[in-house]
Amino acid sequence: MTAAGAPDELTSVLRQIVGAEHLLTDPDLRAGYEVDWTRRFHGPCDAVVRPADTGEVAAVLGACTAAGAVVIPQGGNTGLVGGSVPGPAQGGRRVVVLSTRRLRAIGPIDDVVGQVTVGAGVTLAELEEAVAVTPWRVGVDLGARESATIGGMVATNAGGTRVVRHGMMRDNVGGVEAVLADGTVLSHLGGLLKDNTGYDIASLLCGSEGTLAVLTAVRMRLVPKDDERCVAWIGCGSWNDAVAVATSCRLRLRSLDGIEAVDAAAQRVVAEALQLSPPVEGTIGLLVALTVDGGPQLDTLAALAGERPVAVALDGPGASSLWERRDRVTEAIATTGVPHKLDVSVPLPAIPPFTAALPAVVTAAAPGAAVYVFGHLGDGNLHVNVVGPAPEEDAVDDAILRLVAANGGSISAEHGIGRAKQRWLHLSRSPEELRTFRAIKAALDPAGTLNPGAGPVLP
Amino acid sequence: MTAAGAPDELTSVLRQIVGAEHLLTDPDLRAGYEVDWTRRFHGPCDAVVRPADTGEVAAVLGACTAAGAVVIPQGGNTGLVGGSVPGPAQGGRRVVVLSTRRLRAIGPIDDVVGQVTVGAGVTLAELEEAVAVTPWRVGVDLGARESATIGGMVATNAGGTRVVRHGMMRDNVGGVEAVLADGTVLSHLGGLLKDNTGYDIASLLCGSEGTLAVLTAVRMRLVPKDDERCVAWIGCGSWNDAVAVATSCRLRLRSLDGIEAVDAAAQRVVAEALQLSPPVEGTIGLLVALTVDGGPQLDTLAALAGERPVAVALDGPGASSLWERRDRVTEAIATTGVPHKLDVSVPLPAIPPFTAALPAVVTAAAPGAAVYVFGHLGDGNLHVNVVGPAPEEDAVDDAILRLVAANGGSISAEHGIGRAKQRWLHLSRSPEELRTFRAIKAALDPAGTLNPGAGPVLP
Repeated sequence: MTAAGAPDELTSVLRQIVGAEHLLTDPDLRAGYEVDWTRRFHGPCDAVVRPADTGEVAAVLGACTAAGAVVIPQGGNTGLVGGSVPGPAQGGRRVVVLSTRRLRAIGPIDDVVGQVTVGAGVTLAELEEAVAVTPWRVGVDLGARESATIGGMVATNAGGTRVVRHGMMRDNVGGVEAVLADGTVLSHLGGLLKDNTGYDIASLLCGSEGTLAVLTAVRMRLVPKDDERCVAWIGCGSWNDAVAVATSCRLRLRSLDGIEAVDAAAQRVVAEALQLSPPVEGTIGLLVALTVDGGPQLDTLAALAGERPVAVALDGPGASSLWERRDRVTEAIATTGVPHKLDVSVPLPAIPPFTAALPAVVTAAAPGAAVYVFGHLGDGNLHVNVVGPAPEEDAVDDAILRLVAANGGSISAEHGIGRAKQRWLHLSRSPEELRTFRAIKAALDPAGTLNPGAGPVLP
Repeated sequence: MTAAGAPDELTSVLRQIVGAEHLLTDPDLRAGYEVDWTRRFHGPCDAVVRPADTGEVAAVLGACTAAGAVVIPQGGNTGLVGGSVPGPAQGGRRVVVLSTRRLRAIGPIDDVVGQVTVGAGVTLAELEEAVAVTPWRVGVDLGARESATIGGMVATNAGGTRVVRHGMMRDNVGGVEAVLADGTVLSHLGGLLKDNTGYDIASLLCGSEGTLAVLTAVRMRLVPKDDERCVAWIGCGSWNDAVAVATSCRLRLRSLDGIEAVDAAAQRVVAEALQLSPPVEGTIGLLVALTVDGGPQLDTLAALAGERPVAVALDGPGASSLWERRDRVTEAIATTGVPHKLDVSVPLPAIPPFTAALPAVVTAAAPGAAVYVFGHLGDGNLHVNVVGPAPEEDAVDDAILRLVAANGGSISAEHGIGRAKQRWLHLSRSPEELRTFRAIKAALDPAGTLNPGAGPVLP
């Protein structure tokens, strides 16, 4: 394979493995795989392979490793940190994008235990549809459900809006099938709820961002379908107050399902840009979602809200209307400019000092910029958006991530490292940890085939 | 250090690190560390070191690795598979037992997020006492709480009776501090609920049985303290019936906390040996524990039990009396002989065929033996006990573990592999998985210092 895409030995081997129609070398056909959906991250590849099953994935990986090529695993390509597309240069090595989208099998749903085995290329929406007829549902939910694949969600340890109840993707995986760079197939899809027979490869691959293996199938643990849900918007006087209410909710409401927060600036932009005023007054709008089953949850919630203004709605248009004021924050901010988006987490007790220090830090790095804070407060996961500085100026990103680290936080709560955050990884991880990541990478992918230059292993 | 225990260079280095009183070379002082509490597993060591802090652990490991010695990490020594004591021979290498029992610090309890950092040598009971004053509690509970250490519980991914609600130890850990064999200290104790900045070292070490690193501290995630609990004993007609009721409970009772089962033989031996008859009739006694908060849980439970005989008791003597009939099964069986104990898990749908095939398999391997089945049905975790064959005759163990594997189960649900189960590990893990375990081991412990001959890496 040359820069011009002329056939060479690797190309013909890959073509033999997946068939001519699933080896894309034409620049027009490759283009969609060379850029992520934000258009911020892109890089050229020599070919895109679309294997049909685990055997083909193993053959592709073995051939690429033998040829010294780089493989970029790609699922739905909905990540936000450039982890699923090639880098601008891959050290002169040939670059193959491996799309998992043809790994689309959905196995029989085990109704007794609440599990199902799905191909890595199945989208979240496809899986949700498949389980809709059962008493179970998928525990993780997120906005990109129509495109995000289960394999990609495992590889990035996706979070979303229900982490308070069901945890991250790692907590919802009962086993994986994956292929190492040399073509070795690891398969542990029995989904046993208890199985202390070795290192937890599934947890290790979860969040490894395609740097250790290519996921081909996932045993998903499902969760019971909800009873009727209820959403409350509580007007809190400060971040301190919001954290206190969130903690009380976590302690008292077993049926809790989400705790989101929207700061005053974000409430204002939603009101102005979308004509959606906050339902009640309050510096911080705290959205609490829970399920109700005829028990005392609503009374408990009212007691927790105390004197604070509160709007409550059961499932249906009322609840959707409350959620809209959280869901559409991103859209409202986008009407004011191109935001710098920082997905960070901070220990809950550090949220008040972090948010108090934030305006001055932003102003120092980007005078006149607007800053919005919202996100999954129950998990300490805040989305900090800044509008003002040009997209490529990252002084404000740097300043905010340093403030996060100074408050004991993480520079990436749920998006991962990808290519975008490698330069800040040292703020969250020690040299000893980074060395250990490198050792694990070298053990499973000694040739450095898989996604070099992305994820937690620094180049 | 020689076989006679005479001082050599390593001994004097270790003495300098931990102080003379914490380096035990006298055979009388070593003896308690060379055998596990079951007395089934034992092996000699040259010395026991009792480091006081992480720095001392790092120095000890560095010195031992440099000297080519073997290190056996030991916590409360309450494991059941011989993973925390030396083997009968360690390949001619010097053997040092590293006791974590002096790593006893308990950090401040973070009431807001519900977390605390504890030294690896803190016992579960000590931690429970420390958090008793807060609105939080420890999510994992087990019988050995007075001796089992938090470090050991992480290293073995301990389970217990509340896994249905709170998961295994892995699910209750928010980060660890650990020392690699070369003395490198890895510390990630921030306890962030969301943190996608690298490979999940904590999950990898959880269940690694001391083969990859020595845990020195653990960030424990706590869970909300319970409301009033309630226990019900439902008389089920068969294993099939019991699995069906268990599934309904998992789907309908959000406040569920445990699902245990006791088969007819185990009910009978408890009645005969301890004069504790089952509270209601039924081939399988199904114990369901849940918390009640004034909601409809008890009505739901009654509906789930349907026409089956049921005894219900709120917290207090009535509940204890029901639990006793499950808790004391082990004790009752012990009055009839020395049992072969098999801690296995089987997919829930496979429990009826597995238990149906079991008597014939046991009879073929050990004619006339008695077999008892009980355990954590909600997790598919059964404790199969067999009385009859001599303790050292393992034909029946072999036959049962093969039946487990044939039913898609695990040869070790919650006890781990240790030294006892290595010969059967191939029944649960493929050659590719075993090779991958070995590669990970070689990456983190290239000299093979830590616990060789135990855990999931075969010699």
